[in-house]
Amino acid sequence: MGIDVGGTNLRGKIVSDRGDVLAERKTRSGAARGIGTLMENLSAFIEDLSGENISAIGIGIPGTVNGKNGILAQAPNIKNTKDFPFVEILLEKTGTEVPVFIENDASCAALAEYQAGAGKGSDSMVMMTLGTGLGGGIILDGKLWSGEDGFGGEFGHITINPSGPECGCGSNGCVETYASLVAIKRIVKEHPRLASKLGDVEEDEIPERLENLALERDADSILLWNEFGKNLGIGISTVVNILNVKTVVVGGGLSNAWDLFIGKTEEEARKRSLDSSARGLRIKKAALGDASGVLGACYLARSRFCEND
Amino acid sequence: MGIDVGGTNLRGKIVSDRGDVLAERKTRSGAARGIGTLMENLSAFIEDLSGENISAIGIGIPGTVNGKNGILAQAPNIKNTKDFPFVEILLEKTGTEVPVFIENDASCAALAEYQAGAGKGSDSMVMMTLGTGLGGGIILDGKLWSGEDGFGGEFGHITINPSGPECGCGSNGCVETYASLVAIKRIVKEHPRLASKLGDVEEDEIPERLENLALERDADSILLWNEFGKNLGIGISTVVNILNVKTVVVGGGLSNAWDLFIGKTEEEARKRSLDSSARGLRIKKAALGDASGVLGACYLARSRFCEND
Repeated sequence: MGIDVGGTNLRGKIVSDRGDVLAERKTRSGAARGIGTLMENLSAFIEDLSGENISAIGIGIPGTVNGKNGILAQAPNIKNTKDFPFVEILLEKTGTEVPVFIENDASCAALAEYQAGAGKGSDSMVMMTLGTGLGGGIILDGKLWSGEDGFGGEFGHITINPSGPECGCGSNGCVETYASLVAIKRIVKEHPRLASKLGDVEEDEIPERLENLALERDADSILLWNEFGKNLGIGISTVVNILNVKTVVVGGGLSNAWDLFIGKTEEEARKRSLDSSARGLRIKKAALGDASGVLGACYLARSRFCEND
Repeated sequence: MGIDVGGTNLRGKIVSDRGDVLAERKTRSGAARGIGTLMENLSAFIEDLSGENISAIGIGIPGTVNGKNGILAQAPNIKNTKDFPFVEILLEKTGTEVPVFIENDASCAALAEYQAGAGKGSDSMVMMTLGTGLGGGIILDGKLWSGEDGFGGEFGHITINPSGPECGCGSNGCVETYASLVAIKRIVKEHPRLASKLGDVEEDEIPERLENLALERDADSILLWNEFGKNLGIGISTVVNILNVKTVVVGGGLSNAWDLFIGKTEEEARKRSLDSSARGLRIKKAALGDASGVLGACYLARSRFCEND
């Protein structure tokens, strides 16, 4: 069983050994009301979804997760989650005897793209997720590397300009301050002309509006996506020079604007990667969309279960 | 048997299963005269050093090495080494039937520090080597990660300032342009006042001279080491945010100036690493000095031999 915990929804799936989907369900997570409500909803959801012979449960969570001890270290969008013993509490609440594995949701998405999406067939892969922030996951020789404490893959916090804009993390000039929804909102705020072109638009609709403007050949919007792409490329080159991973998958909501930024991303990533590493580099668009979270949670369950077996 | 191939010397060691040094030797590498001379000298050296019951040979080489297929992709200090089939030629020349494993010399140094130096006792570790350039090695859960093609750990080419000084790699603003011997030479050239304080000094003696000046409280030299440390810290934070590795070992010739730069390095690395990752971070000075290359080559031989077994 794989479950994707979102700020709004819980999505669950049961997948057989052979990869067939046996059951699928969705409900409200209640995460906005805090970790207590989330755990209530989650255990009810698991009991509801169960019934088949489950051998393991994998859960992707939007936060910093220590997959080894099952602790959710922090989750900006779920209240009261400082070092919360997620797995322990869940086992207690559900009474399940099946092993439960948790990971960061971006890591789960990376697992899914690796197994069944844009990274299929590669040995190693990194995935960068362009959403509100910039997250990611690392797969090395087929195995998820999420760091010694589960905090790895934080590609958004690669410094690309030490004196750049302030980042939510306390540093400044992180790539997330240049290539994410947060970044786009900042740039729009700093450019009244661009802001006036957007008109009266909801914050979350800004990227789509900017895509349309760029497609209508608005110079300011084109420049914005070019800079977005370039800065993402700088971040990618750093990851490539460190890890020499040849497949980079880019996903998340903002990857919808692919054609508007990927040219600059490719150019910058190749220019700044060592020739030897750049040679085999492929930057690909994620293939699974929203489905990657819950699918990745299923793969997480399967791979950890097999390791433990 | 472990061999460290240097621009000037070949260093070799034979180590028993239990870690006892059974033999040790050194000779000229002849690398400056090109790969042909090096291979002649190396095979004679191996025959000379052999005699004990050798089960595997590990070799550390200053260049980009594909450890999987035994090819030396490039080595700036050894002529005619574009995609040179190093292991194949060596097996031919020596006629040895023992397996030969090659890796980048900085990766070997990392293995040694992990097994017997500053990284001893850690699960995972990265090593940054401050020399002419800035190289390194990555150990994840006890295993060397040198990338899909052996080109990983190139920490020197993390971009920390997209519009910074030109780097030998073709990019600019790489951390190597701020924290390496190459960087120091550039900075001195750009600061006539600092250059005049150095007086008539050989290029390779510049760092030591700058250390002494800083110890004598020369403001320009102190500033140089502070900036050096700060920029190294930015690079470290990026590695920590990506890999969530808790032990960072800093070695290489320039680490002699440790006390002059490490304060700023610590400060900047911690400021720019996510809190969760910064918590467990330890930045340590390499413990093995020059010996790490040949010792690491021995560990390489042992670990690869056991994997293959």
